[in-house]
Amino acid sequence: MTKEGVQGVTEEEQQAQSKKALKKQQKEAEKAAKKAEKQAKLAAEQQSTDEDDFAKDRYGVSVMVQSQQKLGKQCFLVLRQQQFNVQALVAVGDRASKQMVKFAANINKESIVDVEAVVRKVEQKIESCSQQDVELHIERIFVISQAEPRLPLQLEDAIRPDGEGEEEGRATVNQDTRLDNRVIDLRTTTSQAIFRLQSGVCQLFRDTLTKKGFVEIQTPKIISAASEGGANVFTVSYFKTSAYLAQSPQLYKQMCICADFDKVFCVGPVFRAEDSNTHRHLTEFVGLDIEMAFNYHYHEVIDSITDTMVQIFKGLRDNFQTEIQTVNKQFPSEPFKFLEPTLRLEYTEAVAMLHEAGVEMGDEDDLSTPNEKLLGRLVKEKYDTDFYVLDKYPLAVRPFYTMPDPNNPKYSNSYDMFMRGEEILSGAQRVHDPELLTERALHHQIDLEKIKSYIDSFRYGAPPHGGGGIGLERVCMLYLGLHNVRQTSMFPRDPKRLTP
Amino acid sequence: MTKEGVQGVTEEEQQAQSKKALKKQQKEAEKAAKKAEKQAKLAAEQQSTDEDDFAKDRYGVSVMVQSQQKLGKQCFLVLRQQQFNVQALVAVGDRASKQMVKFAANINKESIVDVEAVVRKVEQKIESCSQQDVELHIERIFVISQAEPRLPLQLEDAIRPDGEGEEEGRATVNQDTRLDNRVIDLRTTTSQAIFRLQSGVCQLFRDTLTKKGFVEIQTPKIISAASEGGANVFTVSYFKTSAYLAQSPQLYKQMCICADFDKVFCVGPVFRAEDSNTHRHLTEFVGLDIEMAFNYHYHEVIDSITDTMVQIFKGLRDNFQTEIQTVNKQFPSEPFKFLEPTLRLEYTEAVAMLHEAGVEMGDEDDLSTPNEKLLGRLVKEKYDTDFYVLDKYPLAVRPFYTMPDPNNPKYSNSYDMFMRGEEILSGAQRVHDPELLTERALHHQIDLEKIKSYIDSFRYGAPPHGGGGIGLERVCMLYLGLHNVRQTSMFPRDPKRLTP
Repeated sequence: MTKEGVQGVTEEEQQAQSKKALKKQQKEAEKAAKKAEKQAKLAAEQQSTDEDDFAKDRYGVSVMVQSQQKLGKQCFLVLRQQQFNVQALVAVGDRASKQMVKFAANINKESIVDVEAVVRKVEQKIESCSQQDVELHIERIFVISQAEPRLPLQLEDAIRPDGEGEEEGRATVNQDTRLDNRVIDLRTTTSQAIFRLQSGVCQLFRDTLTKKGFVEIQTPKIISAASEGGANVFTVSYFKTSAYLAQSPQLYKQMCICADFDKVFCVGPVFRAEDSNTHRHLTEFVGLDIEMAFNYHYHEVIDSITDTMVQIFKGLRDNFQTEIQTVNKQFPSEPFKFLEPTLRLEYTEAVAMLHEAGVEMGDEDDLSTPNEKLLGRLVKEKYDTDFYVLDKYPLAVRPFYTMPDPNNPKYSNSYDMFMRGEEILSGAQRVHDPELLTERALHHQIDLEKIKSYIDSFRYGAPPHGGGGIGLERVCMLYLGLHNVRQTSMFPRDPKRLTP
Repeated sequence: MTKEGVQGVTEEEQQAQSKKALKKQQKEAEKAAKKAEKQAKLAAEQQSTDEDDFAKDRYGVSVMVQSQQKLGKQCFLVLRQQQFNVQALVAVGDRASKQMVKFAANINKESIVDVEAVVRKVEQKIESCSQQDVELHIERIFVISQAEPRLPLQLEDAIRPDGEGEEEGRATVNQDTRLDNRVIDLRTTTSQAIFRLQSGVCQLFRDTLTKKGFVEIQTPKIISAASEGGANVFTVSYFKTSAYLAQSPQLYKQMCICADFDKVFCVGPVFRAEDSNTHRHLTEFVGLDIEMAFNYHYHEVIDSITDTMVQIFKGLRDNFQTEIQTVNKQFPSEPFKFLEPTLRLEYTEAVAMLHEAGVEMGDEDDLSTPNEKLLGRLVKEKYDTDFYVLDKYPLAVRPFYTMPDPNNPKYSNSYDMFMRGEEILSGAQRVHDPELLTERALHHQIDLEKIKSYIDSFRYGAPPHGGGGIGLERVCMLYLGLHNVRQTSMFPRDPKRLTP
């Protein structure tokens, strides 16, 4: 478990090389893979009798296997730490012996090493590494954890831009292989960047709302009644009875508003037992949820949410450029554009734009996915924004608790928000009057007995309120211009995937 | 939906009175409860024909019920907004008519009103309100949402200190009534303070760790295999197969460490299908989880966690005094004490202290709950701290993935942390070597097939690492000196409670 510092490095370099958890990407290797296991112990014993090696305290392996192979007077390694990597060199000299070079050359890829090294400027840029101007001259190297000789996927392949592999006859890694071996796939600079950015989205979401006076709440995921009619809900066995997994925290957010919390948010898993096998559906995803009382008009709610999104976009643009550029290397995309204030279109305007583009649809029909995407393109052309709000959806296509538009009974005080033409949030003013709520539930043929405690929540004073739920994985996917929500879920769940 | 501002108030007062979501606690009332529903519409119609009322645009109700009753020339109200309340007065004069006073007096308790009022200093402190030096002289009052005349519980009762009710023959509210009517119970100043403080704990936890370089992760709650032998786990039906609810994010945190994230944390629900009906067990609670790679010794992990706890304690002490004092009014407790650096005792020392206090137990027995509490008192007496770490638990009482102590095979590199004598965190250095992990799993008679993907995660390079999981509700309960974890869970889940 010995570990030494790195000498003579700048701060940035230190971040990149240094310390613990440095990984090794050995350039040649793999030939020796098969001899490994059995020869290893033998080799280790042999080595311990190599009394004439002056550098024998400068390298070693504690308990793990190694393979042996002659490689000459020096060897190059690539050491990685999170999003960064650096080239390293072990060369025969006064700090390293032939045996030490051999040892270094034979460390399996993806093993974890501790090194002590001198940082030197290089004449020619090292294009293959994130640290291009320096390399490490290793003086001590210890294996902390030896990886198995055969990896289920190669990181070089996993990080290759789409298409590039095919041209040059090199491998790329398909999504199922990635996800089956997620622990390795998450080590790519692309994955590291995606999930650091995702962590940033959560932080920006919470910080913005906390500054606005919102209170964070924790809502239960095991619930006794499937609220919205019982479709697409997972059943849980609960001692001698059964229960359900919450499809959203909405009812609980609303209860908090009725309980005087005024403005609340929560971040947590939501569950959808929907057999949708698409690029943007998961059975479990992370909801960023908002609910707030308002004074005069539900547009106060829209303004709070859109401002929160804008603060997230700005925070990502200003503080996550390294991550955005890292992802763009593998998955190129246009920078994400947004307006201030956020563009708000009414549903009827959107339908008119689609009609003009030749789409046939009724004024009060819901938007199909292709029409959503087309609308996104039309809006981008006309307004030059990747983010906008579509307001005043037809009442018929929204849930029973949606407040009808007082000016036009066919429409409602509800909205969706879109990034790059795909829906990331659905929200509305909620009905806060128990009589109207009962009436709307009956209209939707919902069993009143099942939503009794929900309706009762509004009987003892309930302020007008509204909110919405944002899908974290979709926000990350669309902000980065990625094409599958499984890329932005660490351990995605869909109808066909429950592991790892 | 009319709503007007409040004139001539200081900032603090504005926070307390003002605006939307103001609630009304009418002092007398309740007598009129029964006449309500039917008389209401009639009254509303009558009122609209009262053409001779000069103040008729100064009050009103939009759609809701009201009751009628003569009360004289003035009436007092108590208006509440979240943790604060203030006395208000409607008196016949040039801004209010007799009818308006009557209207105000008859607004049901817990209704939501908008008021316009002048703030005036009072000569004698108003002991019953949080704003003791001022009262509001109401000039306009509008009911935004009328509460039903009969409330399932009275807020005065719900906020009465334990014992005080009995002496004076007044009612207190039992816990089931509170929880059955949580939307109302959460309106008490005590509940408001508890959950604002809880929101603070989460924020302090994340901010401290983010500053330390930790990355926030999101882990799946639906999992394919019950990791720790399958006991106490909820089963979910998952399309044509079945799955489980995660008992902790631990395996996923560890995978993230193996995937190069170095230091991670997560905040999310964890599920325990344990039929424990105690003051400190829930079937669903919020886990604050930490996992990190370390360099030399797992005490680096203990130090990171204890420092995080200390930052939380300091943040609460410095920024949540209002909340702490509000809770203390109903539930008095000693201020929470902690040391810097945090006290760390070894398990053998604790057993010795218990032996000295007359407890009979074996050196390698687990601590019973009464012994934990006794130990807490002994530690408090000796070291004057409510927070400490107990290190080096007997190996036999810990899970299979716990790293054995290299110096004594009967013990392990594992620890619990305690607040006021109750466990709030359990953690350890984890076994990061797949061979040792296999050996330990076999020793615990765990089916290797079921934990294959977990063990395989360590085959491709895994740094030494450790962590722990903290129960959010317990931290809040014990910090505030409360006696039941259901007080710090908004919508608690236990073997007997699934609603609301």
